[in-house]
Amino acid sequence: MVTVSTSIDAQKIIHDAHSSNPAETGYMRGFPPPIDKRINARDGSFFKFPALRYSVVHMREFMPTVNVPRGNSRPPVEFPLAIDENIDSIKFFPTGSTTPLTIAESQNVNYTDGMLILHDGKIVYEKYFGALTPSGVHAVMSVTKSFTGVLASILVAEGKLDTAKLVREYIPQLAKSGFGDATVREVMDMTTALKYSEDYNNPNAEIWKFSDAGNAMIEHPTGTPQGFYDYLPTVVKEGEHGNVFGYRTVNADVLGWIISTVTQKSVAQLLTELIWSRLGMEQDAYYQVDALGIPFAGGGLNATLRDLARFGEMMRRGGEWQGKQIIPRKAIEDILNGGNKKAFAASIYGKTLKGWSYRNMWWITENCDGAYMARGVHGQAIYIDPAAKMVIIRLASSPHSSNLELDATSLPAYQAIADYLISK
Amino acid sequence: MVTVSTSIDAQKIIHDAHSSNPAETGYMRGFPPPIDKRINARDGSFFKFPALRYSVVHMREFMPTVNVPRGNSRPPVEFPLAIDENIDSIKFFPTGSTTPLTIAESQNVNYTDGMLILHDGKIVYEKYFGALTPSGVHAVMSVTKSFTGVLASILVAEGKLDTAKLVREYIPQLAKSGFGDATVREVMDMTTALKYSEDYNNPNAEIWKFSDAGNAMIEHPTGTPQGFYDYLPTVVKEGEHGNVFGYRTVNADVLGWIISTVTQKSVAQLLTELIWSRLGMEQDAYYQVDALGIPFAGGGLNATLRDLARFGEMMRRGGEWQGKQIIPRKAIEDILNGGNKKAFAASIYGKTLKGWSYRNMWWITENCDGAYMARGVHGQAIYIDPAAKMVIIRLASSPHSSNLELDATSLPAYQAIADYLISK
Repeated sequence: MVTVSTSIDAQKIIHDAHSSNPAETGYMRGFPPPIDKRINARDGSFFKFPALRYSVVHMREFMPTVNVPRGNSRPPVEFPLAIDENIDSIKFFPTGSTTPLTIAESQNVNYTDGMLILHDGKIVYEKYFGALTPSGVHAVMSVTKSFTGVLASILVAEGKLDTAKLVREYIPQLAKSGFGDATVREVMDMTTALKYSEDYNNPNAEIWKFSDAGNAMIEHPTGTPQGFYDYLPTVVKEGEHGNVFGYRTVNADVLGWIISTVTQKSVAQLLTELIWSRLGMEQDAYYQVDALGIPFAGGGLNATLRDLARFGEMMRRGGEWQGKQIIPRKAIEDILNGGNKKAFAASIYGKTLKGWSYRNMWWITENCDGAYMARGVHGQAIYIDPAAKMVIIRLASSPHSSNLELDATSLPAYQAIADYLISK
Repeated sequence: MVTVSTSIDAQKIIHDAHSSNPAETGYMRGFPPPIDKRINARDGSFFKFPALRYSVVHMREFMPTVNVPRGNSRPPVEFPLAIDENIDSIKFFPTGSTTPLTIAESQNVNYTDGMLILHDGKIVYEKYFGALTPSGVHAVMSVTKSFTGVLASILVAEGKLDTAKLVREYIPQLAKSGFGDATVREVMDMTTALKYSEDYNNPNAEIWKFSDAGNAMIEHPTGTPQGFYDYLPTVVKEGEHGNVFGYRTVNADVLGWIISTVTQKSVAQLLTELIWSRLGMEQDAYYQVDALGIPFAGGGLNATLRDLARFGEMMRRGGEWQGKQIIPRKAIEDILNGGNKKAFAASIYGKTLKGWSYRNMWWITENCDGAYMARGVHGQAIYIDPAAKMVIIRLASSPHSSNLELDATSLPAYQAIADYLISK
């Protein structure tokens, strides 16, 4: 979901993780819910903190969605349990702070809804907070982009998608847009140069027009974009492609469009066929769709904590799962090799995520452990640390939309856990 | 779903079952779908034949919904297969016709999407047409009411709901409405007397206002009903309760409201807990919800053919399933005992469904076999024939909305199959 809220300091101060818990706030509870507890996707109220803490596990009740079925009748593939009670008391220094925080303390600070940690394929930590339960399907926001990136990486590895080709060669409708003369590679690595602001604090930013176009819950007058693919051709170029990393959701939806054009399948259907139905998932996942039935490849996926862990562990194993190669090793290696560090350093992210790069819609830390991430607003994360044989899934509903604000109490925590697991 | 279309003779003539098949019509196909193939729930185009034939298995892509989880990780309970190839060639005389039709022929006539027949707990017939597949979740329309009726019957059998009490005793908000002085029994048997037309051919009929109130896809200006429960208090009385069967969807939603008030659970949650999670279902089901998140108890359920068969077979077995009593036998016996035949005879349905009655939101044929039905517009049916040890599930997307128009080619077919199975 393209976000509506940004960090609202007043609300943040009033509501801590406990008082913002949906069990306390009572949004959408009652028959019918009282007027002051009603929220919806039409006016964006469902995405404002603290209502967001309810909505993240009830997205389909607010908008049209399409299923991503687990795909068979067999029981799910279960991880061995090796719960390590020490993890909660691991201490770390939040970036820029001299006061240490424990992992347990960090969960409230980050408004965590759920965290699952795998070490060498075993569950060492699994906790639920807020409105999330083990079967609860949670919005993963922009983590969705990394799924889109993996689908594209598979097609590239299989020779079905050519990263050197121009976008207009796949999508003629985008020929005259800012994407037209960008390569697929530039779209996948978000180095397209576009007149397009994704500053959620600016009400005139283009992200809002894109968000509106894809919002099935609002009316679209004739002559205005009816969905994502009606909007994308209106995006114009600004500067030269390939030089600077510019994190813009539209790239993920252009990539989704390319994927669907190449395969004649929606990203929902392709994710089902190539991945979701092949990992022994526990629950169906789903995508938000626009008014034209197109899944939101840039942010519309919803899934359970454990199913995201199954996906993350398959990635860590280089695409292997239960003795089968689910996705080509080459597809994952291309992500692991990282992207253009110079282009990343030149972006606003380069200031805080020093030395990182971005490849195939994944965030590459370029650290010694070779860690890489999928990141979504309000605290969603898949963090894969190959050296520590560790996969962390963190789902959250923080009042902070930008992960840059959450990184200080997240990234050092992940590293501390990795260090602990390596030393065990 | 409250229907938008009625029988459109011109369309019916143009489109037979083959040419109206979504594989032929191409609605919502393409990236994005061409403008003339776009349909939606806001203007009702998704429910017009032949677009309806696509929409019946894609309801969640058009509107907000709530999940009804199958509820565990075990494989589904499978029926033994005993396919009887002769069933397709069984002949019957459609009501009022001297030209016999075979079961196979009747499927096209009825625009059947799927039919499954159980005989003594074994699958003897299972066919898919149109856009339905074995894992496809299909709208069951007013068959939903019978699920609501079963939930209420369970609460009655458990002593949690008193059928002699007045509606206003459970729902103070309805005190001044036409429902206020009706008993729960009158609501369950639809003998409330209301100024409320459910004539889909009349654009001023109250059903349209109710339908709009519950349609989350349209804007509800301040001061107008925001959902089903905002609308129901506006329904006024006309005549005396208890005398005439009046088939009106609002009764099912009042019953749903009563159920949720008594249990403090939505009908979706209650259906999950009491039934859906306990029958070894194959897929999650789901309900359409209104803008307030309230499931549509009168018509919003969607489920697969086989899962409906699991439910139907549990009903036929008097509530027993896999050695467990899932719902009290008393709850089912109360349905089997039938309703007020005189009240039914006095309704418009009495003219064609001679001798029938209506009890706890089920249609009771009162025939020698003791057959009873759940019925939904456009051809949805659960037909349970105790004497023949038979359960038929029929899902369809006929251009005819009213079952009265489909009964001629359906009810004699069901009876012919029952007779054949009894004689086997």
